[in-house]
Amino acid sequence: MSAFDDLKAHLRQICALEQVMGRLGWDQETMMPRGAAAQRAEEMAALEAVLHARRTDPRLGEWLESAAPPDDAGAAIIRHARRGHRRHSRVPVDLASALARETSRAQGIWAEARTRDEPAHFLPALERVLALKREEAQALADGGNPYDALLADFEPGMTGAEIAALFARLRPPLVALRDAVLGAPLQPAPLKGHFPREGQMRLARRLGERFGYDFARGRLDLAVHPFSSGSGDDVRITTRVDEGDPLNCLFSTIHELGHAVYEQGVDAAHALTPLGQGASMGVHESQARLFENQLGRSRALAGWLFGEMQAEFGDFGCTDADAFHAALNRVHPGHIRTEADELHYNLHIMLRFDLERALVAGDLAPADLEGAWNERFEADFELKVDRPAHGFLQDVHWSIGLFGYFPTYTLGNVYSGCLMQALRADLPSLDAALAEGDVTPALRWLKDRLHRHGALRDGRETIAHACGFAPDEGPLIAYLKERFGALYRL
Amino acid sequence: MSAFDDLKAHLRQICALEQVMGRLGWDQETMMPRGAAAQRAEEMAALEAVLHARRTDPRLGEWLESAAPPDDAGAAIIRHARRGHRRHSRVPVDLASALARETSRAQGIWAEARTRDEPAHFLPALERVLALKREEAQALADGGNPYDALLADFEPGMTGAEIAALFARLRPPLVALRDAVLGAPLQPAPLKGHFPREGQMRLARRLGERFGYDFARGRLDLAVHPFSSGSGDDVRITTRVDEGDPLNCLFSTIHELGHAVYEQGVDAAHALTPLGQGASMGVHESQARLFENQLGRSRALAGWLFGEMQAEFGDFGCTDADAFHAALNRVHPGHIRTEADELHYNLHIMLRFDLERALVAGDLAPADLEGAWNERFEADFELKVDRPAHGFLQDVHWSIGLFGYFPTYTLGNVYSGCLMQALRADLPSLDAALAEGDVTPALRWLKDRLHRHGALRDGRETIAHACGFAPDEGPLIAYLKERFGALYRL
Repeated sequence: MSAFDDLKAHLRQICALEQVMGRLGWDQETMMPRGAAAQRAEEMAALEAVLHARRTDPRLGEWLESAAPPDDAGAAIIRHARRGHRRHSRVPVDLASALARETSRAQGIWAEARTRDEPAHFLPALERVLALKREEAQALADGGNPYDALLADFEPGMTGAEIAALFARLRPPLVALRDAVLGAPLQPAPLKGHFPREGQMRLARRLGERFGYDFARGRLDLAVHPFSSGSGDDVRITTRVDEGDPLNCLFSTIHELGHAVYEQGVDAAHALTPLGQGASMGVHESQARLFENQLGRSRALAGWLFGEMQAEFGDFGCTDADAFHAALNRVHPGHIRTEADELHYNLHIMLRFDLERALVAGDLAPADLEGAWNERFEADFELKVDRPAHGFLQDVHWSIGLFGYFPTYTLGNVYSGCLMQALRADLPSLDAALAEGDVTPALRWLKDRLHRHGALRDGRETIAHACGFAPDEGPLIAYLKERFGALYRL
Repeated sequence: MSAFDDLKAHLRQICALEQVMGRLGWDQETMMPRGAAAQRAEEMAALEAVLHARRTDPRLGEWLESAAPPDDAGAAIIRHARRGHRRHSRVPVDLASALARETSRAQGIWAEARTRDEPAHFLPALERVLALKREEAQALADGGNPYDALLADFEPGMTGAEIAALFARLRPPLVALRDAVLGAPLQPAPLKGHFPREGQMRLARRLGERFGYDFARGRLDLAVHPFSSGSGDDVRITTRVDEGDPLNCLFSTIHELGHAVYEQGVDAAHALTPLGQGASMGVHESQARLFENQLGRSRALAGWLFGEMQAEFGDFGCTDADAFHAALNRVHPGHIRTEADELHYNLHIMLRFDLERALVAGDLAPADLEGAWNERFEADFELKVDRPAHGFLQDVHWSIGLFGYFPTYTLGNVYSGCLMQALRADLPSLDAALAEGDVTPALRWLKDRLHRHGALRDGRETIAHACGFAPDEGPLIAYLKERFGALYRL
């Protein structure tokens, strides 16, 4: 065996164990009995310790010295392996185990606190997780910026300063457009009525089929917070159901389908290598947002979905497909990020980005987080936070240690804008297909340009390769102006 | 840290990872998408390789040399660790990984073959698994008897020859009783009718509550082959539903509850140590069979269950509790082990025991298994095997490499006879409680005498400690003669 073969065999084990860890995470949020939380934390800590040992194996360093990549994919594998080895070698094993244990515990505590609307129940857990993440960030940064070090786990090659600059460019046109929309004389009505759970779940499954999700290699379940997990042949998604608001379930589902179809579309040759998954969280999110917004909320697809809704729920109080399309794109300030319209969504992210940077920097204490959140939220949304579960308790991320993750959502929006511009240029008859509920042409384009390559390139390069141009915020702003300008007759 | 503390910390990791492995097994049979089988096999092989490395860690040998146990539990931990270390050190890591991978694959293939009734689809997988298990048995036996070496995984301290002798003593009175029962003039009628799935599942959940199952630390799902998995705070069971035969679901459930309540009842102090689980498969099965038969099919509990059945299904064609009790204990030759009455059940096991001993010894080739099974089955049951799914394809065990497991079922029956004799002697008012659907007194006795101790003692000693006498087949035969003699008026 060559050093490269040894390296690949070792990475294959790591990837397989990472899949196991992902499955435990899925189980925890969908199936696990509530009394098992403490034991599960021990199980995940034990597995994390194993992964840490594998990722910091001294032989990795030797193989990386001498491995000769046979091709571009091999070179990319070595690049990922080198980065991973350096990243994990900087974190002591005890810290890695403690993080796995505490985040597993904290997730359960967060879910309870959110249900009970009790910030005090969550605070000690958040304090423990943040303290460990700050310790980890220091170790990872190795003298550099701690927040950037955490960001690198999700969007390699990006810095907090670059994100801040991007957000600064994005914010003024977004806010201007939002204000214009909210001031428009014509405001679309939200959907009203009762939409039984079974009908919503049937429709969610039908969306899965339309959007190319392979149910033989995945499954759809309910969870508090919708998510997608797994790679290759076992990619599972979850959704949630609100019988008063079917759009919550349907567009959560389309969103997670974007993540899942991306993972299912990676070339089988990359399976159980570092290339056998999405390129970065920003790219991942771009797929989810492109499914959800650019495709899912388009006038063309809304026409088809309107028919499906009528078939499932009968007359649901929406006069025609135009009114339905307007309801899908209704702009209104709300508390919940995952239910936000496209104009408010990025404001939710900017709020979280600024707060988590302050938390990681030590400029904001967890005890002051709720107050800071509520103050900033009111300033940005002209709306008071009515309860903690609608405020800083709404997202799972911080409880499981995902600091540096939030900005990748807006990065995903920016990327999705670029991809859609390129996709529309290549597929002039896209809307005709979407109007029939046929997403296949778009899926084929995405699979060919992006999905199948997995993590062959880093995030920004993946988008540039797919689009044929370097990504920036321009296409997203142009798309938002066009969609909302037309809908609100600005 | 003392050597004993080091040892315990290491074992804690092993136990936690074994729980993870158990969860993957549960997922595979309940939730996993069918297209994920090959990938899952890789994942389990990677985890098995990790476990193997942990179990054969050279430091274990050193710690075992110098560890001083602080108490009886400590001494038992060392005993288990020494046995495990010796066992696993004898199996090369490549063989352990190959077994994990092949058994994971073979399980999926078996399930397909069973559904399609296609032995040829399963045969190559069975051949691979058997070849690996024979290789493992040779390595484990270290010059001794290979079958005994496999048996030791499930029933430490027992040999194939002892089991054969026990079966030889059990067989004549069993067959005589079976023949007398089948020749009796009065034969109870089986239940007939349609019993909707939802009602069966509701009743299954109610049985869980009555039999002391803590749903906050467990869950109940559907699977092809009912099973129980996990220890401590995450003990899950599965059942299956046949709408024409509710007893299938209900008594499968009570059976698995016996396993699960045992695991849930182990002292929390033993959690994530080698003592934090059942003492042996025979003892485990004794709990399942005692729940299912001695308690579940008693006249007393049948009276309560009859009322529950009426409440759930209305008039279901059974005139009274006596007729219901007779239907629960109807003796008739049938193809399926898990649906067999108490007299035929052990004949199913003796058949499997003889065949698997021949397979492991190399005296029977997998290609000849179906023929050998069908011939022996007809001789023992005076009934032809009508299709492979009702013959050698019915059980999951061999597909997942469980050779040496089957005899522990009959051992469990023998142990359950002993336990019930001791339990009845201590609790004269047991039947009065059971007639009210109150299993609590029996549960309390079992928890105190047996469950809480976990694997503190080996199988036979666990039963002897609980009963106050050394187990043999006498009490089981006496109990069967009494129950079936009365029911069939012999």
